Amino acid sequence: MRTLDGVGSTPRSGVGTVRWYRPDADLTLPDRPDPESVDVDAELERYETARDAVRSALRDARDRTAERVGEEEAAVFEAHEGFLDDPTIIEDVETAIRDGTPAAHAVADRFDEAVAQFEGMEGRMAERADDLRDVRDRLLRALLDADGGGPAATDLAALPAGTVLLAERLTPSDTAALDPDAIAGIATVEGGRTSHAAIIARSLAIPAVVGVGEALESIADGETVLVDGDAGTLVVDPDDERRAAAEGTGPAVISERVATADGRPVEVAANVGGESELDPAAERGADGIGLFRTEFLFIDREAPPTEAEQYETITAALSAFPEDRVVVRTLDIGGDKPVPYLDLSDEPNPFLGRRGVRLSLDEHADLFETQLRALLRAAATEHGDDLAVMFPLVTRVEEVERAVETVESVAADLADEGVDHAVPDLGAMVETPAAAFVADALADRLDFLSVGTNDLAQYVMAADRGNDAVAEYHDPLHPAVLRALDRTTAAVEETDAWVGMCGEMAGDPALTELLVGLGFDELSMSAVTVPDVKRRIREVDADAAASLAIDALACETRGEVLDVLGLDDREG
Amino acid sequence: MRTLDGVGSTPRSGVGTVRWYRPDADLTLPDRPDPESVDVDAELERYETARDAVRSALRDARDRTAERVGEEEAAVFEAHEGFLDDPTIIEDVETAIRDGTPAAHAVADRFDEAVAQFEGMEGRMAERADDLRDVRDRLLRALLDADGGGPAATDLAALPAGTVLLAERLTPSDTAALDPDAIAGIATVEGGRTSHAAIIARSLAIPAVVGVGEALESIADGETVLVDGDAGTLVVDPDDERRAAAEGTGPAVISERVATADGRPVEVAANVGGESELDPAAERGADGIGLFRTEFLFIDREAPPTEAEQYETITAALSAFPEDRVVVRTLDIGGDKPVPYLDLSDEPNPFLGRRGVRLSLDEHADLFETQLRALLRAAATEHGDDLAVMFPLVTRVEEVERAVETVESVAADLADEGVDHAVPDLGAMVETPAAAFVADALADRLDFLSVGTNDLAQYVMAADRGNDAVAEYHDPLHPAVLRALDRTTAAVEETDAWVGMCGEMAGDPALTELLVGLGFDELSMSAVTVPDVKRRIREVDADAAASLAIDALACETRGEVLDVLGLDDREG
Repeated sequence: MRTLDGVGSTPRSGVGTVRWYRPDADLTLPDRPDPESVDVDAELERYETARDAVRSALRDARDRTAERVGEEEAAVFEAHEGFLDDPTIIEDVETAIRDGTPAAHAVADRFDEAVAQFEGMEGRMAERADDLRDVRDRLLRALLDADGGGPAATDLAALPAGTVLLAERLTPSDTAALDPDAIAGIATVEGGRTSHAAIIARSLAIPAVVGVGEALESIADGETVLVDGDAGTLVVDPDDERRAAAEGTGPAVISERVATADGRPVEVAANVGGESELDPAAERGADGIGLFRTEFLFIDREAPPTEAEQYETITAALSAFPEDRVVVRTLDIGGDKPVPYLDLSDEPNPFLGRRGVRLSLDEHADLFETQLRALLRAAATEHGDDLAVMFPLVTRVEEVERAVETVESVAADLADEGVDHAVPDLGAMVETPAAAFVADALADRLDFLSVGTNDLAQYVMAADRGNDAVAEYHDPLHPAVLRALDRTTAAVEETDAWVGMCGEMAGDPALTELLVGLGFDELSMSAVTVPDVKRRIREVDADAAASLAIDALACETRGEVLDVLGLDDREG
Repeated sequence: MRTLDGVGSTPRSGVGTVRWYRPDADLTLPDRPDPESVDVDAELERYETARDAVRSALRDARDRTAERVGEEEAAVFEAHEGFLDDPTIIEDVETAIRDGTPAAHAVADRFDEAVAQFEGMEGRMAERADDLRDVRDRLLRALLDADGGGPAATDLAALPAGTVLLAERLTPSDTAALDPDAIAGIATVEGGRTSHAAIIARSLAIPAVVGVGEALESIADGETVLVDGDAGTLVVDPDDERRAAAEGTGPAVISERVATADGRPVEVAANVGGESELDPAAERGADGIGLFRTEFLFIDREAPPTEAEQYETITAALSAFPEDRVVVRTLDIGGDKPVPYLDLSDEPNPFLGRRGVRLSLDEHADLFETQLRALLRAAATEHGDDLAVMFPLVTRVEEVERAVETVESVAADLADEGVDHAVPDLGAMVETPAAAFVADALADRLDFLSVGTNDLAQYVMAADRGNDAVAEYHDPLHPAVLRALDRTTAAVEETDAWVGMCGEMAGDPALTELLVGLGFDELSMSAVTVPDVKRRIREVDADAAASLAIDALACETRGEVLDVLGLDDREG
């Protein structure tokens, strides 16, 4: 038993088997053969096959990351796909192959040239070099893998259960790709607890110790290590006592609903992005689904889903939570969520373009009506009285009025057809400043509002949440964002509606007291953090939370907010 | 004397000489010559020369439009330049020329093919076909013009003074390109007073009658016409009496400062985008400059301007308004304002990226310091105590703190060097929701705030102001935007700072009462509308305006706002 010190990042512990992640390891190419001896057609085909494999891996990584962490972190994989399929690069590589260069050498040559170009640039363009290297390495692994299978490098999303991942450093996208159910812990040579990667690890509830230093290299693949994120230590070959203590630290699932110490109930629901996530959410004690994304029904396919298919999915969600509310968000495409068969146009600023309910009320009214038919029919089934439906990216009261009219018109059609149906509770996402400013009028017309903090922070702060160059701006702890939240909850308080939050912010136990103090009735999050937040709510006193919120709202800088929250060591 | 009826759009009259604008007129190509007879090198050169001429014309149009109307309308010309310089199109055209096709035919063939492709698409992609046609016609005109000069078609921005422009219809970008000092009036066959083009004409104070119908065709080039935007009529060959009456309708310049009917002073300043606009602004009675854009010093050149060059420009502005305040905005690049030599990176959502003060506090700190040196030196000159400086795209109090620190550090440097200087009044643009939410804290640290309504509406409504597909969203009369304005003015009222507005909204006399009621101390606008707004302020009663603002803020939809303002015939 040997102990290494680092910085505890996620305050949890886990024990598992070490696997080093070395993305920078040399990909040694064989010597260049005589051009005459190269089988050009075979090499061209190998290049295409490798690109197909890498593209498929990138798309899987994108979808997994989007579901588990968010679209923000997933966007990097789309950028990678752009480099993979860059027509200039493809043309140059193919030309080199035709001139007798094997595919792997041709890829290495061309990407190294591009890397050098980007490295010669200033600032954020230089960072694209990292992305290019990433794509180059994926391609080379696919090409060098003798079996011709997929990339032979560590697939971070498919590590075996009980893995403790060690690395020099992890990027945010590395971290976002991890499966929190498989990873027992992570530890890195570099990094601080305030890095973006560390924040993501916390949001995934993965035990983490960072900044261990070069001593980490003394641990070898296959060793058993305890990652103690509370103490900030790594214990190699832990004895049974330490191991048992560590394994006991995972928060117990709290199946029942919770309230603050002084009795104010707060619902803790799960965000779900596909049917496979329903049971895990229930197992972790979620009080229903606060955000059921429906995009997974529409992407990666050739045509939109039928009404029957959507009906099946919605009733499955209702059955998974027979006693609890299931909030289904209507189709939220556009922006960063392209759907090829919908022929969405390119826009210079897609996040400020045709997105969410704007499409549903206009060019994709047909999809919207089909989805509403499925929803209204599902609302009439056994557990259907727990169904709620919310509209994304609302900015105008007029949109809600038109959406409600559409619901009524669909209900009338179903009645005419003699089809069983019911009108579920209706709500709107508050994810634009406009929605926060007219939250009173929205709440008057609806049963509930649910704040999406990722988009709200993006628009309040005028900072693309997928653009690392403005990462310090799109943080929900900026006073302006907190004031937008307060504007929303204060407006809803005057009405009969309830107000929830389904952004990433909702799943951070360090912010639970603040959110309770701001008046949220429901918090919806990645299922992994449900137990932590439930436990935290039970510790919170609602009056003290209200005072905390008042203090936070009086802050003028993010630093002051961190002070008030006792989080002064957290950085952007 | 003959009278035609239409719909009065801009309530002003003007008399001038008719010029028909027929952008759709056939550009007839000569017969195709024998490929053998084509001088390939000469045709390649003609193509390149034509592209250069069109590019230059597009950039002029862009800059003029940005200065006169706004970046929103100017963006279309950047899209046109994209088509002009599309590498695929260039390659195809050049290949065709090499195969013996004259440049004009090669351009026509290739663009017609692209137009057909876009027309086959749905929705907004189909609209790109219009843009392609526009570029094709500009190129063909440049190629067909025997003298080899610039485009022979009507250059809307360079029409002779006293022109009455007639057209089937005008696009918003057509209208934005017009020089309000040259155009005596416009009249169109189609269109309503609520079209975007009509709204722009009003903002430029150009007399306009729209929807005249086919009867308009009875008026020929060279005839003298009176455009009566009050009566909604066109008078062909007006008699002297009519003509004199019309020429008397332009609002008289009011040189002195104005106050509401009950004595509340409101400053009416001009937005200025270059030195040539200084004198015209003074001649129209502007009470100083509320927004002096400095981008013109940086664009269309190979290197940034020197400190001396900036100093000269700033002191020229101060001299043009010796008794009045001149508010200089520090460099506001990024977003939609690319500056080639600054190597700004491409961003997926540039409006949510590195813009404004973000760049000045980071990668372009050097430009910022040079600009501040010029400003602080100018502040110590004869009229320098009227200088004020404001920072663009502020979202965080921390940014203002850092900007003020930079000013202090520059002042200390100048003191060390023994250079005369003074620290001017400092302010911030409120053009993000974040700035509105923390306006109290900003105003505590600064001398003034100035609201940029174009960007503010864009971010509040999450709607790109350059994207026509979401045009109905980025309107300042949505209740959410009005509430963001109110949040700002109410916060400033508690401080010693003053608050102005320098967005397009400030120049619309129909909104003057509302803005006075919301508490703005200063309104800054295109110089052409200064007389109208001054006249309107004198009619307004401040108490009644405050009541109007309260009523408008209670509205929940844009339609209700229009009702309250008595503008119920205005559409998006």
